[in-house]
Parts: sequence; C-alpha cells; structure tokens
Amino acid sequence: MLSFESDYIAGAHPDILRRLAETNLEPLPGYGTDKYCESAKEKIRAAVGCPEADVEFLSGGTQTNALIIAALLPAWCGVISAETGHINAHEAGAVEYTGHKVISLPQQEGKINSADLSAWLSAFFADENREHMVQPGMVYLSWPTEYGTLYSKAELESISALCKQYGLYLFIDGARLGYGLTSPAADITLPELASLCDVFYIGGTKVGALCGEAVVFPKGARPPHFINTVKQHGALLAKGRLLGVQFDTLFTDDLYFRISRHAIALAEELKKVFLDCGIPFALSSSTNQQFVILENSRLEALREKVRFSFWEKHDDTHTVVRFATGWSTTEEDIAALRDILLSSCKL
Amino acid sequence: MLSFESDYIAGAHPDILRRLAETNLEPLPGYGTDKYCESAKEKIRAAVGCPEADVEFLSGGTQTNALIIAALLPAWCGVISAETGHINAHEAGAVEYTGHKVISLPQQEGKINSADLSAWLSAFFADENREHMVQPGMVYLSWPTEYGTLYSKAELESISALCKQYGLYLFIDGARLGYGLTSPAADITLPELASLCDVFYIGGTKVGALCGEAVVFPKGARPPHFINTVKQHGALLAKGRLLGVQFDTLFTDDLYFRISRHAIALAEELKKVFLDCGIPFALSSSTNQQFVILENSRLEALREKVRFSFWEKHDDTHTVVRFATGWSTTEEDIAALRDILLSSCKL
Amino acid sequence: MLSFESDYIAGAHPDILRRLAETNLEPLPGYGTDKYCESAKEKIRAAVGCPEADVEFLSGGTQTNALIIAALLPAWCGVISAETGHINAHEAGAVEYTGHKVISLPQQEGKINSADLSAWLSAFFADENREHMVQPGMVYLSWPTEYGTLYSKAELESISALCKQYGLYLFIDGARLGYGLTSPAADITLPELASLCDVFYIGGTKVGALCGEAVVFPKGARPPHFINTVKQHGALLAKGRLLGVQFDTLFTDDLYFRISRHAIALAEELKKVFLDCGIPFALSSSTNQQFVILENSRLEALREKVRFSFWEKHDDTHTVVRFATGWSTTEEDIAALRDILLSSCKL
Amino acid sequence: MLSFESDYIAGAHPDILRRLAETNLEPLPGYGTDKYCESAKEKIRAAVGCPEADVEFLSGGTQTNALIIAALLPAWCGVISAETGHINAHEAGAVEYTGHKVISLPQQEGKINSADLSAWLSAFFADENREHMVQPGMVYLSWPTEYGTLYSKAELESISALCKQYGLYLFIDGARLGYGLTSPAADITLPELASLCDVFYIGGTKVGALCGEAVVFPKGARPPHFINTVKQHGALLAKGRLLGVQFDTLFTDDLYFRISRHAIALAEELKKVFLDCGIPFALSSSTNQQFVILENSRLEALREKVRFSFWEKHDDTHTVVRFATGWSTTEEDIAALRDILLSSCKL
Repeated sequence: MLSFESDYIAGAHPDILRRLAETNLEPLPGYGTDKYCESAKEKIRAAVGCPEADVEFLSGGTQTNALIIAALLPAWCGVISAETGHINAHEAGAVEYTGHKVISLPQQEGKINSADLSAWLSAFFADENREHMVQPGMVYLSWPTEYGTLYSKAELESISALCKQYGLYLFIDGARLGYGLTSPAADITLPELASLCDVFYIGGTKVGALCGEAVVFPKGARPPHFINTVKQHGALLAKGRLLGVQFDTLFTDDLYFRISRHAIALAEELKKVFLDCGIPFALSSSTNQQFVILENSRLEALREKVRFSFWEKHDDTHTVVRFATGWSTTEEDIAALRDILLSSCKL
Repeated sequence: MLSFESDYIAGAHPDILRRLAETNLEPLPGYGTDKYCESAKEKIRAAVGCPEADVEFLSGGTQTNALIIAALLPAWCGVISAETGHINAHEAGAVEYTGHKVISLPQQEGKINSADLSAWLSAFFADENREHMVQPGMVYLSWPTEYGTLYSKAELESISALCKQYGLYLFIDGARLGYGLTSPAADITLPELASLCDVFYIGGTKVGALCGEAVVFPKGARPPHFINTVKQHGALLAKGRLLGVQFDTLFTDDLYFRISRHAIALAEELKKVFLDCGIPFALSSSTNQQFVILENSRLEALREKVRFSFWEKHDDTHTVVRFATGWSTTEEDIAALRDILLSSCKL
Repeated sequence: MLSFESDYIAGAHPDILRRLAETNLEPLPGYGTDKYCESAKEKIRAAVGCPEADVEFLSGGTQTNALIIAALLPAWCGVISAETGHINAHEAGAVEYTGHKVISLPQQEGKINSADLSAWLSAFFADENREHMVQPGMVYLSWPTEYGTLYSKAELESISALCKQYGLYLFIDGARLGYGLTSPAADITLPELASLCDVFYIGGTKVGALCGEAVVFPKGARPPHFINTVKQHGALLAKGRLLGVQFDTLFTDDLYFRISRHAIALAEELKKVFLDCGIPFALSSSTNQQFVILENSRLEALREKVRFSFWEKHDDTHTVVRFATGWSTTEEDIAALRDILLSSCKL
Repeated sequence: MLSFESDYIAGAHPDILRRLAETNLEPLPGYGTDKYCESAKEKIRAAVGCPEADVEFLSGGTQTNALIIAALLPAWCGVISAETGHINAHEAGAVEYTGHKVISLPQQEGKINSADLSAWLSAFFADENREHMVQPGMVYLSWPTEYGTLYSKAELESISALCKQYGLYLFIDGARLGYGLTSPAADITLPELASLCDVFYIGGTKVGALCGEAVVFPKGARPPHFINTVKQHGALLAKGRLLGVQFDTLFTDDLYFRISRHAIALAEELKKVFLDCGIPFALSSSTNQQFVILENSRLEALREKVRFSFWEKHDDTHTVVRFATGWSTTEEDIAALRDILLSSCKL
C-alpha cells in the first residue's frame, strides 16, 4: 500500500546494502574499533569542519538522546526542552529513567525561543530556593523539530550564547539533520551548526540507513570512559561495522545530502498536492515532514488507501496527521497520492 | 529575631520532647518495630477511620514523595502533578532520580482542576503514539497546596473518580494536612479524605514534630516488601522510636489538631495584619501559609527586622513572599509584626 | 588477517543479506509491527514448541539482559548469577544501572551448581535480617556459559525446580544458544529448555545476524507495557524490520542450526589443532569458544599472525585466550591456524 | 527485658535531649543553615584536625553510604567493598539503586587486605576487556567493621596508598567510629584516620544520638551542589537543627568519646562474661559488638530472657549472634546477663 507514514518505511539506501555486502566477509574487530568506523569518523569530521571532533556511533534516536544527556549531566542537573521536544513527549521517559528531569518550556511550532529561555534562566538564578530545584545543565533542541520546522541561524546563535553565558551544554538532536540542511528554508551550514553546540548527532535511521546515529562532539570533548557508558546503556553493538559501513557510505559521494535533497524535493511536491486539494496545513514545515488537518471521517476513509501517521487531536472532529517523504519516496508515489486525494475530495 | 519564615522554625511541640524524654531509657527494638510505632499506627488508623489501613513512618516530605511514588509505580509510568506541585518544582528532581517522569498540568492557585485532568487523560488514551509516551500511573495532589489553598471535597471527589476510571493511584501529599483539616475553608474530614485516595501522608515535620511523616494506605494496600524499599531508599531509621513516639504523642489528646488550630487561628490574625497594613495578597490562602506581594525595596528593609521566605518574582519591582504560622507562633509575634509593618508603612 | 577473535568478526550470513535486499523497498510500518517480525515470531514459536509464547526482538545481548531483568524484577529484588556471568563481569554495570543488584555465586567452569544455589537460598530465607538485604528475584544462567560450557538437562531441571520452589524467575541468556543446542555435549532440545525457564533469548548477533536477539517468554507472560519499556531503554528500532527479516531468515530452512552446526564442527577441528600442537586448554568447552593457555611471549608473537581474544591472566607468565568459530569460519582458516601454530611451536 | 540487641536500643544520651529542649523555642532557619549546625561543624573540624574540612549532616548510615557513593562516583564506576561490607550485605541494594555496582572482595574477619586489593587492581588494569567492565572508582571500608574488628593504622595506610596510586576515592564508613577510636586495639587517632581518606563519617545514631551521621571531607572537597544532591536523595531535613544540636552536643566536653569509652569498657566486661561462661567467640572483636556462637536450642531458651541479634548461621546446630553495648548499657546489665548465662549453662 502507498505509504507516507514516516521516513523509515523502507530499508536502507541501496548503496548502503551494497557496501554491507561487499565488506561482509572481511574479518573485523568488534565494538566499533574497525576500519570502517574509523573511515566514517574521518569523513564526518571533514563534513562538519571540525578536525578535532570526537565522533561515536549509536543505533537510534532515543538511545542517543538518553545516553548523551546522562553521559554529560551530573545527577543534580536537568535538561531544558521544548514541551514538544522528542525527549519530553515521545521517548517513554527514557531520559527520566536515567535519573534526569526534562524541564519543559513552552513552544511555538516546535521551537522554544531565546527570550523565553533567557527569562527562565534569569528567574531560576534569582530564585532563593534553587538549592531545592533541579539545576539546568543543558539545552536540548531538535533540528529540524518534531514539527518539521527549523531554528534560523540567528535563533541558534542566540540560544548558543545563552548556553555559554549560563554554563549549559547545547545539544542538538539531528535525527533528521539532513532534511534541515537541505531545506529551502535553512540559512545555516553543517560546520556553522557544529560550531554553535557542544554535541549533536547526524541521524542515519531516518536518512537512508537501517539504523544508526553519528554523535559529534565538535570540540573533541567526548565524556571520559565513553565506551563504558555505551556498554552500560546496552548500546554497544558487537558488530560495530554495521554502523561504520553505513555512515562511511552515507558520507561518500555526498550520499547523505543526495538522499536529503531528494526527500525535500518530493516534500515540496507533496505540499503542492495538499494545496491543490485544499487540505489545510497544521503549520508551515519546510522539511520532509508535512502536517495537515483532516476531518476524522475523511481520515478513516483515506487510511484504506494510503498510510500516514496520527499526530494529535486538532479538535473534536479533526485530527492532525503527518505525511513524510524519504529516500524511497518516488514521483509516482506523489502522483498516486494526488489521485487518491482528488478522488476523495469529491466524496 | 522575629520569624515567620516557615512552619519549621522551632523544634518540637513540648509534649513531644517530654515523651521522648520519658521513654528514652526503655530498650526497644529498632527499625520501627517498637511498641510506640505500633501504638501510633493504631491511633492513626482510628483517626482516619480505616481499621484496615497500613501506616508507615518516614522522616520528611521529599523522602516520602519519592519513595511512595517509586514504590507504587511500575517503571513505565509517570505521576501527574500540578506544575507547581512540590514534586515538580521543589524537590531537586527526587522523583526523576527514581526513574519516573513528573507529568505536569497547568495550575490555578496551586491546584489542577478535574476538567483539565479529564481532557488530558482522554487525549492521552486516544493518542495512537502512546506506546512511545510515559503512561500515567498516578495523580499527585498536595492538600493544602504549596500556595496554602485547598481542594474542596467536590473537587477531590471528581479527581478521585477520574483516577478510578483510568486506573490511576491517587496520592495526597499531606505535609501540612493538619492546617487543611482545621482551615475555616475546609469542607472535608480526615476519614472522608482517606476514603478518596489510595495513599496519603499526615505531615509531622511541619505540624509540631522534629521530623516525620505518617504514610497511610487507607485500604491496607501497602506495596509488598515495603521495609526493603524503605531501606533501599536510605529511609529506615535505626531508632524508629523517634518517629513512633512523636506520632503517638501527636495523636494523643488531639495534639495534632490542637497544634493545627492554633496555627490557623494565628494565620487568620496574620491576614488581618496584612489587610490593615494594605499589603496585597498574592492569592487567597485559607491555611497557615500566607503569600503577599512586597515592593523589592521594602522587602529588603523588612528583612532586617523579621524573617520570611522568598517565594517568587512577581514583576520587576515586586516579589511574592511567604509568611507562615506554626505551633510556636504567638499572639506577641503577630503584634510585633503589626508594629513593624505599620512603622514600615510610614516609610 | 586470519581471525578467531570472536563469533562476530564477519557480517551477516549471506542469506540474511539477500533477504534484507529482497525486502528492502517494501514500505513497512515501524517499531517491530511489520509482517516479517510477525512471521519470525511465528516460526520461533514453532521452533521452541510454545504456541503461546511471546517473542520480542532486541538488538544485543547486554541490552537484552539489562532490559529483561529490569522489566521483570521489582525494585527490591536482585538477580543471582555466577560470578563469571556476563551480567556480573562484562556488561559495564548495565544491570546495576537499572537499580538492581547482581548477587554473585561461585562458579565452576562458568556454571553455578544447584547445591550451592539451594544452600544460598535456604540460608537467605532463614536470615532474620533479610528485610535489610536484597531479595532474590531471579536466577540468570548463560547457556552456553561465558566459558563455552553447558549445563546438562539434569542441572537445568534442578535449578528450575529451585526457582519454582522459591518463586524466582529463571532467565537463560542464550546469546550463543545455537552453539549449545548443536554441541555434541548437549542433552537437551530447544523446547525442553524453553519449558524449564520463564524467559530466554535466542542470540542472533553471534549466530549469523548483523545484530539482534529474540527474547522468548515461553508461557506468554511478557511483562505489561513491554513496548513502553523497550522504548524507555532506548532499545526500540524505528526500522524493526532489520530484526524481523533477520530472524525470519534464521528460522527458515533451519539456517540458525545450520550455522550453529557449521561452527561447532569447525570448533571440533580447532580443538584437534590445539591438541596436536600441545597447547593446553584452560577448561573443556564443547561449544564454539575454545580457551587455551599461552605463554605470554608466544602470545605476543602469535598476535602478529592471527587474531584471538585476551580472556584472563592465568599466572605471571601465561594468559588464557579465546579462539572462536562462527558462520564464516572455513576449513582453510583452521588449516592456516594449524600451520601458524606448528611453525610457532618450533620456535 | 534485658537487651544487648544493638547499640541503638535506647533513645539519645540525656545531654542531647537536654540541649534539644533548651534550644527548642529558638526560631532558626531550616535545612541545616542554623547556628548549631555551624557550631557542630566547627567543633568537628577541630576534632578531626582539618580546619579546611567540609562537614555535612545526614540522618542514617545507609542513607549516607548511598548518597556519598552516588555523589562522588561517575556513572561508569563502582565501589570496592568487602563482601561482608554493610553496603554489600545489609543495605537492601541502596547503592545499586543509585546505579552503581558494589564490587566485592573476599574478607577476613570483616576486612579486606591490601594484598588482595592490590592484586585485584593490578589484574583489572591489565585486563584487555576492561571497557566492558565496571571501573573501580572508590574503596569502601567500615571502621570498625561489621564484625567489630579494626584495620590497623598500617593496614589503612597501605590501602590509602593503593587508592592514591590508582586514583580511587577512599571512603570510611564510621557508623561506629567512636567505638573504634576508643578500642584498646586502636592504634590510630581521628586526625590520622582523616588524613588517610577522602571522605568518612562520624556515626551518631549508634553513638548516643537519636539519629544522624556527620560526613567529613577532610580536604574540603565536598562535591559541588551537595545540597541539591541531599535534597534529591530525600535526605534534607527541614529541621536541620535536629542534627546540628545533637552533633554540637556530642562534640562538646568530649561527650562522643565519653559515650564510646563507656561502651568499650562494658564490652570488655561482656567479653569476660562469655569467657567465664565458656561461650565461644565467633571471632575476636575489640569494639562494642561481640559475636558469639550459640547452640540453637540454647539460643531459643536465652531469647526468653535477653534480647540479642541473629547474625548468621554457623552450622546446622549453631548460630552466630551479636551482643552490643552502648551509651545506656550499665554494669547491672552485664551482671544480669552473667546470671542468666550462668544459670543457662547449668541446663
């Protein structure tokens, strides 16, 4: 069935599968110490423009978020996030399971703004009861956000400056980083983004890999005993090559960005389909996830012909749903969706 | 110096000290297995009108909150609280340290309302992504709240009914329970309150004891291996008699309620002082904590003559502060405060 | 370079890669809800002879151990393990990170014995201080053990009976289950093993998969909200198909057992090589991991020609090392090792 | 009934109760910021001979152990303890609950020896798999031990030197510190002991207080945000004066040592009683806890006349039990015990 359910509906980009097959018989040491991991790290250091960066590979987004936050924060610290941030809303309490509070701030289209953050921090450090409160230790942003939106370069600079001023880590969740960097709305490059934060990751799972996220500490400040930490979180793959070969492939011949540009181009066509069919957007997303508002009866009818994701209740008779493009989405998929929607419009 | 800083500025009610001295030489078994603990439990069962209740003693409010929540909730569950709830705002992340998320709801004068709760629960259980979300397992209320306000009996019944409907525990933080029960605004008795929840505690620390909270499971459903849990949390006192003797005394000759009524009566006089001096209330509290708004310059001047607590910033030139009464507050204290405020008014 | 470093030195069995490629373009729902996961579960239910079994897929052994233990045990319980058990020795404290103590018992060739276990349990439940102690909640066994040895059917029955008697879960770590079942020393079938425990897993990572372990609850007693738990541990793969397709392939046409038998056959030849070269065994292993004692100077010389794993210090001049076979080991590898060892014998 | 059950069978030393009463009405700030806490800290700094020491008060031994270990160790580290160490055996997994492994070493009469420790550390740091293992971060000793025995000054120096060599914290659990320092077998002073470790505590609960342990960081290296950590563990008493007044009293006029010497003197008499009655010691303790071996039938008979503690099974017909002296033990108690034992000998 036609599916726009997510950007992880298909397997891996064929180049990745090919490289996995080509390297399959080579005996390699385990736990991420193989040459493909090394090569991938070197390519990523070049791509982010940080020759001193530490790069580490993990399997998935929630694992990465919880592990990085727990690895960097002392026990008494929490992490600030938009209330809609993935760590606050859709990770089943993985961060709290490691003992840390997620301190949520109000959001607009998935983003916190630096004025709110500044006001919150200023109030916190003026609060005479703060020895009884969770200390802020980090700001977490997703870029793109869970709503497909992007912080501008100026917004990131402003938040980054606040983090420096208050001694907080800035951590950017880049589960869909490629779709941000190749969005028509992006005004920031990968090296610029890297220079503004303490740690971020380059999502693989949602950008053509079977699994895998590349965590980058741009300044080389990986926490000590990081492999112990990865093992302790149950996140150390014996066949680390699975991640190394995938990222080595993604960062060869611009594949990561080719995949991203493809999905963005089709997302732009997807937007036109919704516009043409008169289906309203829940908000304006410039990346590969598009959120539209469907009448509940239409939603049910549509589900028989195409897969998409429930996002949230809009009102008693309408629902916000998500359509996503990815490496495997085709022009034919878009055309087929247009046909379905047009015919369903007529109902 | 004159102090309205809190309801824990003095030591224990003299009756408690006397009983500690009288029983001091008796050799007793440790860890809460002594006869004073037993006697206190029996008296509390009678006071709450639940002959089958399990009663356990712990040392302080934060310890009790974190331990009870962790003891009752499975790992995948979080606890719903007003955003101003003590567990969410002023316990340094003690609940999250046990691995559980505090799910915060908006508050009005320190209270959540059942309409908001109902809407939240209904949306949660309709959310198709809820396997990726923290499951609600408990509702936490403080009674009185952190702002001195009280849920009415009808409000508690409504929230209790929602908890039953959705299979959630209802946990009432009674760190200042006595001041609620003896407030002129209260419309509920202790047995009625007990009948509406799964677990609550009767605060001792802030109602005349040196330390101690009496946890009550009205239906007798104390979690299994509770002593193991108390020990694991570092909360098991070797000299459990310290808690047993204190609660046995508090529940002898109505002492707990005499202390509470005394503080409430003086809080009513305190309110008159503020009214008479034209000092505005931040909100209307009917218990022993009163919150008023002071100009920042006046606040600093006043601090040289009387102790009170910073609560929160009101605006750039004003601050909300707390004045509290307790077992040791006297008519003379109130009169002295009146003099200070009246003279400071003239400034 | 020739490598017997582990059973995870190569990628996946070619049949697995082929199936990943064949299914790659199919749009599938995420998070393990796809048809390949379903098919794999059905085949595993048949293989273990438990039509009612719950089967779940996770990525690696440490992740599985920590997650299953945390999911089943209440907070006050610990897990009993041989002191050499993987969870006690080589998982960087992953179990303790979830809050549970590993209670270690003495081992012989990697195994605990039921007499020791019985004595320990009997002493524990007679101990008057046990409210101050970690309660035993589970017995953890690895089969094969970390030393390649196997509990006999009678030994497993005896331990299983003790677990039933004392109300403990029995959890079998089958990271290398296939090599146990196909060992010439095995006297138990997969359905028999399943019938003796509450939960076990069928290791994929070390038996031909890129990653993946299939957790089996033979009696269908998967803990409630298991997906929430998996997500909370950061263990839920968006592309759950990666695990589903692999296990579906492993349990098609007997592949899992063909791989296992191949490795066992070559391990038998490997043993002959060591015997022929006069290299002493550290202990008698009947599975795919062989442990031999090397003089330290010879170890260093050998490392230039073949890869193997440090295991532990034997004495000041000798070291125990591990040689393992796997799906990709060939007759040629064994022959090449024989040549190297024979020539190094002459040194 | 006559009781030698523990050193916490009575309430507080009368001087402590008197001071609590004398200071009871003074309004004091909460959470340990009062003048009695300050005064007690100053006196303790003098007693330990460390003018720069940080001193903090907590309520009980298990709470202190878990909190200090969690506050000092990074997540990837464990704490080394004798297998009979309190944290390993009798704290219901409180340390593991904070996420840290207790790495147990063999013991002799409750003590580890530095040769075993040295061998273990040397093997650990030579182990090529140590990225998969819990890193040692601290050595925990109890002084006196759980068996009443004492490390000599030379033994402590040797262990302290190993800790420095390997970069480990040395933490001394002094729940019964006074009974060690005043033991006839002690060859070390309090300042000497303080100089050998990174953190230790002076037990109050078992040396005359109602509750309370004074944690000392001799070099002033209290972890940052310590009050946040205390609050997060639920260990911050609102009426911190309860601990301040008690320790201020204990360290006034040598009371802490007078109590200790009294108990030690009576323990020496207690030993004579056992000798005279032909009751064998389980081991040789030089402090206030004495461990003797009783035939099980005699144990039951004796329990009707005197309270003591079960310690552990000795063999099928004998049990090790503990008799302890404390501040409230009298010459008359010893005489009464002698009579009981002599008459029971005749049975």
